[in-house]
Amino acid sequence: MRHALATLCVFAFVTQAADPPHTLRGYSQQTSATELQWEQKFKAIPEEDRLRENMRRLSARPHHVGSPYDKDNAEWIAAQLKSFGLDAQIETFDTLFPTPKERALEVLEPVKYVAKLEEPALAIDPTSNQKSEQLPTYNAYSIDGDVTAPVVYVNYGSPDDYKELERMGVSVQGAIALARYGQTWRGIKPKVAAEHGAVGCLIYSDPHEDGYFNGDVYPKGPMRPPFGVQRGSVMDMPLYPGDPATPGIGATPGAKKLPLNEITTLTKIPVMPISYEDAEPMLKNLDGELVPAAWRGSLPMPYHVGPGPAKAHLHLKFNWDRKPLYDVIAKIPGSKYPDEWIIRGNHHDAWVNGAGDPVSGASPEMEEARALGELLKQGWKPDRTIIYCFWDGEEPGLLGSTEWAETHAAELTEHAVAYINSDGNGRGFFRAGGSHSLEDFVNGIMKDVEDPETKMTAWKRVRLADMARATPAQRAEFKSRPDLRISALGSGSDYTVFTDHLGVASLNIGFGGEDAGGGQYHSIYDDFYWYTHFEDTDFAYGRALAQTAGIMMMRLADAQILPFKFTNFADTIHTYIAEIKELDNGQRARTKEINSQVEEGVFDAMQNPKKKMVPPSKEPVPPYLNFAPLDNAADELTRASDAYEKAFLAAGSNAPAAVNAKLIKSERMLLNPAGLPNRPWFENLIYAPGFYTGYGVKTIPGVRESIEQKRWTEADVQIAHAAAALQKEADLLDEAAKQIGGH
Amino acid sequence: MRHALATLCVFAFVTQAADPPHTLRGYSQQTSATELQWEQKFKAIPEEDRLRENMRRLSARPHHVGSPYDKDNAEWIAAQLKSFGLDAQIETFDTLFPTPKERALEVLEPVKYVAKLEEPALAIDPTSNQKSEQLPTYNAYSIDGDVTAPVVYVNYGSPDDYKELERMGVSVQGAIALARYGQTWRGIKPKVAAEHGAVGCLIYSDPHEDGYFNGDVYPKGPMRPPFGVQRGSVMDMPLYPGDPATPGIGATPGAKKLPLNEITTLTKIPVMPISYEDAEPMLKNLDGELVPAAWRGSLPMPYHVGPGPAKAHLHLKFNWDRKPLYDVIAKIPGSKYPDEWIIRGNHHDAWVNGAGDPVSGASPEMEEARALGELLKQGWKPDRTIIYCFWDGEEPGLLGSTEWAETHAAELTEHAVAYINSDGNGRGFFRAGGSHSLEDFVNGIMKDVEDPETKMTAWKRVRLADMARATPAQRAEFKSRPDLRISALGSGSDYTVFTDHLGVASLNIGFGGEDAGGGQYHSIYDDFYWYTHFEDTDFAYGRALAQTAGIMMMRLADAQILPFKFTNFADTIHTYIAEIKELDNGQRARTKEINSQVEEGVFDAMQNPKKKMVPPSKEPVPPYLNFAPLDNAADELTRASDAYEKAFLAAGSNAPAAVNAKLIKSERMLLNPAGLPNRPWFENLIYAPGFYTGYGVKTIPGVRESIEQKRWTEADVQIAHAAAALQKEADLLDEAAKQIGGH
Repeated sequence: MRHALATLCVFAFVTQAADPPHTLRGYSQQTSATELQWEQKFKAIPEEDRLRENMRRLSARPHHVGSPYDKDNAEWIAAQLKSFGLDAQIETFDTLFPTPKERALEVLEPVKYVAKLEEPALAIDPTSNQKSEQLPTYNAYSIDGDVTAPVVYVNYGSPDDYKELERMGVSVQGAIALARYGQTWRGIKPKVAAEHGAVGCLIYSDPHEDGYFNGDVYPKGPMRPPFGVQRGSVMDMPLYPGDPATPGIGATPGAKKLPLNEITTLTKIPVMPISYEDAEPMLKNLDGELVPAAWRGSLPMPYHVGPGPAKAHLHLKFNWDRKPLYDVIAKIPGSKYPDEWIIRGNHHDAWVNGAGDPVSGASPEMEEARALGELLKQGWKPDRTIIYCFWDGEEPGLLGSTEWAETHAAELTEHAVAYINSDGNGRGFFRAGGSHSLEDFVNGIMKDVEDPETKMTAWKRVRLADMARATPAQRAEFKSRPDLRISALGSGSDYTVFTDHLGVASLNIGFGGEDAGGGQYHSIYDDFYWYTHFEDTDFAYGRALAQTAGIMMMRLADAQILPFKFTNFADTIHTYIAEIKELDNGQRARTKEINSQVEEGVFDAMQNPKKKMVPPSKEPVPPYLNFAPLDNAADELTRASDAYEKAFLAAGSNAPAAVNAKLIKSERMLLNPAGLPNRPWFENLIYAPGFYTGYGVKTIPGVRESIEQKRWTEADVQIAHAAAALQKEADLLDEAAKQIGGH
Repeated sequence: MRHALATLCVFAFVTQAADPPHTLRGYSQQTSATELQWEQKFKAIPEEDRLRENMRRLSARPHHVGSPYDKDNAEWIAAQLKSFGLDAQIETFDTLFPTPKERALEVLEPVKYVAKLEEPALAIDPTSNQKSEQLPTYNAYSIDGDVTAPVVYVNYGSPDDYKELERMGVSVQGAIALARYGQTWRGIKPKVAAEHGAVGCLIYSDPHEDGYFNGDVYPKGPMRPPFGVQRGSVMDMPLYPGDPATPGIGATPGAKKLPLNEITTLTKIPVMPISYEDAEPMLKNLDGELVPAAWRGSLPMPYHVGPGPAKAHLHLKFNWDRKPLYDVIAKIPGSKYPDEWIIRGNHHDAWVNGAGDPVSGASPEMEEARALGELLKQGWKPDRTIIYCFWDGEEPGLLGSTEWAETHAAELTEHAVAYINSDGNGRGFFRAGGSHSLEDFVNGIMKDVEDPETKMTAWKRVRLADMARATPAQRAEFKSRPDLRISALGSGSDYTVFTDHLGVASLNIGFGGEDAGGGQYHSIYDDFYWYTHFEDTDFAYGRALAQTAGIMMMRLADAQILPFKFTNFADTIHTYIAEIKELDNGQRARTKEINSQVEEGVFDAMQNPKKKMVPPSKEPVPPYLNFAPLDNAADELTRASDAYEKAFLAAGSNAPAAVNAKLIKSERMLLNPAGLPNRPWFENLIYAPGFYTGYGVKTIPGVRESIEQKRWTEADVQIAHAAAALQKEADLLDEAAKQIGGH
């Protein structure tokens, strides 16, 4: 589901450490050598031809939730996994999944135009004509609606864009907000539009974002053609993902389902995605001010804000049915610690044929399972239990993973060591995001994977390339930090329930940066023809992904002591706190500055009588906050993580495996059962998607968002909560250190 | 000639000083009061209706060099000035001015297209159909040529763009370089293209620069329509402006004329400007890499670099005639100091009808002359001689001003106190650039002119608006500096010969920032209809310009002691030296960084096998330079300017007028008769247009450009020259201080 262009990123501020003798963290010299031998065998197994054939099969027909081929794929995957020797089953849930019954958009004034709302089949693209099975272009979880209103162009439709509209003296009250895709997650656009009084929302793909501005359009090149449309969910996932009718619990047959009118994650206004060719008749007929330069897209015309004269009629009606989900779950039982689970996942459902999203990630996941099956036949036995998941219903709202994890919440809380996710995969640089206690582990894996194009290690390639892009200040950091940084996770794929709801240490991984990225994202053209012409065309990076994820699973499954490293986590927490203080100070300084400019008459001086400009008003200056609890807890965390590290290194392979029970719980310490303000489902106090970003992460979100949203009392409360979580983590590490043999 | 969007700028880092008792600098309390009364009378005289009628008359027909209406306008202006009571004459020169005989551009491959090369008449615009008198679209001083070659897109065609082309592995050798207008002065584009081996150059107006990206296009709005073309000179003016056949001397009948083949300021390759509609058939048919994001314009297509497959045939043949210039020069003799001259100028020639450029500046200049004529009738007598100039031939190459000033060089060196220039005028904020010794003077004037829209002083409006746009660091400077900064002058209008060749303290002034700017720059649509619909439509800012320039002339003419203030100059010189050191350090750090990245293999890591990328090579690290002579001289200047200021303030109105003879020479101290490296005509060591920017200024140019161009030995020599000039200035100020009564 997550846009390929917007995937994970690794920031690299690291000096090249001399290679240490290659003993894996958490292993003895001997078990390390054995492990590395098995990993070598593993890495030789995934085959590019099989990756290609998996993709051909899985993307042969549209396979969205509720479609025949979605079920067919699940059954085929399960059968394949069984044939590899794995214990595979299908777990079924049923969830609310609206599909369109009626869709209409007309421009009524000043020209008449009936929107096509359809992506044309292309002769050269053999699956693009499967009209009867394709989901039409729509945004899932939009409400029904029939509205006629003047149109206002709102740029990306972010909260900041509405501040700019206010400066221009333009309101969307009673209007249809026309937003372009990009920058902020699509579900934020109708949410913020509704908050400002819009009665409807249209989201179009400006050629600036993924069309001709970025390269040749399909089928000549990979980019989105004029009638291409991005489908996608607009469920208010920052409140909670998964089945809207069963928040917090698994959508099993007996579960209590909320009636439609009690569900909070549907949009408040009707919303529909359109192509730029369908948007142009509206955009061309807007008067009002020319929009700021940063708001202008790549259509050949001046972008005006409106409102009107373009007036549109939007009509939407949906089937509000519940549909079955088919999660495929396969297990390899652990030989030593069967109750410690290493979990891997990628979704298998798509919006249409979904060769890129998700099959380019699901196909390597299948190759991993096949390769592990091969190793089992050769005598390898993982110490811990390995679980391979192929999720259904990710696209509409992370349905399959969320319902499965909510159903098994108690077991997962008890047993889950880590969750490793992938989604659409591309070509280029390895990218990882996730729990910072696994950062060092990720770096170790990257050093053992070869980049197919350069034959360097994936680690070296990323490090060098990121160095080239770094600022001089960042480059200085390279020298002092041996590990590349991994980013924090927001949302947009199936790790969400694990990270944010259950506190299971998670990673999201993939390759990208050299491919065409999101050109056909969520369109009928994201198919086998497109992927094999423009993306990872020889599946070299599909193979690299299978190798990377596979050895991650093995290395976690076989470690004597789980390879969590907390000093990196502590270090990064300090940088987040510094960011938040900077945010706070910046807001204070800006407010003071604007207040003084209002007083001095700056906005009178800037008035252009031929251009409307509403000057800002004076605002209360943000009060100073007490960050001391957070600073103290972060210092405690630094001290405790250092102590654990010292004890761990001193004990070496003599450390008692019993400490793993504590390490498994380490990520759980970050949870607050009360959740974040106004969204109790999100329990993690360190990582969350932003309430107004949707996908983009907000670290230490309770504190950061209450400052951003100017709720000062709440900020104080959230500082205390976050500090308590970090203190709990420090306490756990102290206990772990003691258990290993520290003091 | 200078693009309205790119005019002067004032940076404001100033606190609002409490109004001092209003005694003008260089005046006694009593002479100040008298002066201010006359200025009040003056400011009441300019009339918006007359400004409009002047424009209607002067822009009624095309009036380029050599056209009947150019001469007619000159004669009309002279007659008007005489009718105002001024002693006006026409001074005639004849200069090389090529006009097109044959122009053809065809695309031969892969499609056939014959370029229109013509701006269509518009029914609503009454002068757009004067076809028989309009100069066709062309670039003056392109050589004749007939070339057929593949096309390469070179972005703005700056030296940096060619470095980027090198990274892409693309050469223009043997190709036609297709550049877009913008960023760098047009004459730089064929110059740099030829340096890189191109055989021809085309310059088109991308809608991103002045077309629909910026607003509605003409005639609905002010911006350039699809077939609009920007004419303009491509003479190599950074070598020397004026008649190419008479460098350094006046183009009088007896002057020795260089034969065509000895002239260095013609282009090396044929070059022609085109519309984007004529450019599109080439741009659409380029293969090769997608260009970097910053290179992409606003046409609805992916921008590829080429070369080809588009192949073009460019054919150009010119009449290489000499044409007459008609400068109109009017004098008001000084009653006390007739040998001290205050000079005012604006050009009257245009590329076509030229309502914006230059009539919006020339029309106010005429109103100033009329108003001064009125004051003379009322009994006002300027102490110094006032000279009003209406230049011909500015557009092709600053011909009229340069030839006049070269002809009268000896007198000007002896008598010229200051030169005040304007050109096309717009609406909004007052902008000034020029000699920093006049910065304080400009601030004083701005405080005595009312902004027509806000009724604040022009000074307050600029100060507040610039404050709003300033960085926090810049804002801090506001508190410590009472004067707003003025920018340094590069080139692009008639001040060039005064500032750069003769060392006459100069200012270039105008209003802008709220108008449509360059939408019709150098096209047939820059006419009365366009200007009166979209620019300073009620001529309120035309009136403000007449008021501003007029009281500048009066205040300079009547001051007992000329109001030069050198502490501002000294302060700014220190900032320029700091900039140059930063440039030098930055180049050194970047070279080291890139060399180390080459060594580390960064560019191997970044290679994308599906995208061509030529890695940079290691380069010699720039040596450290000895800036001490410049630092010492700048400190001397600070000391001497402080000493002069102290003496001046102590003497008050008792200061002897004899000191003015020294003050007049102060700007001459900055000259080096040997000129800048490779361009001896440019003698000013502090201000010059860049060799590779054309219009954009390079301060302390000898030093700055030798560092930019990595000529280290020359940098040492130029540091010595610049230091000597500053020392001469300091010595002069010491003498002036002594003369006034300092020590």
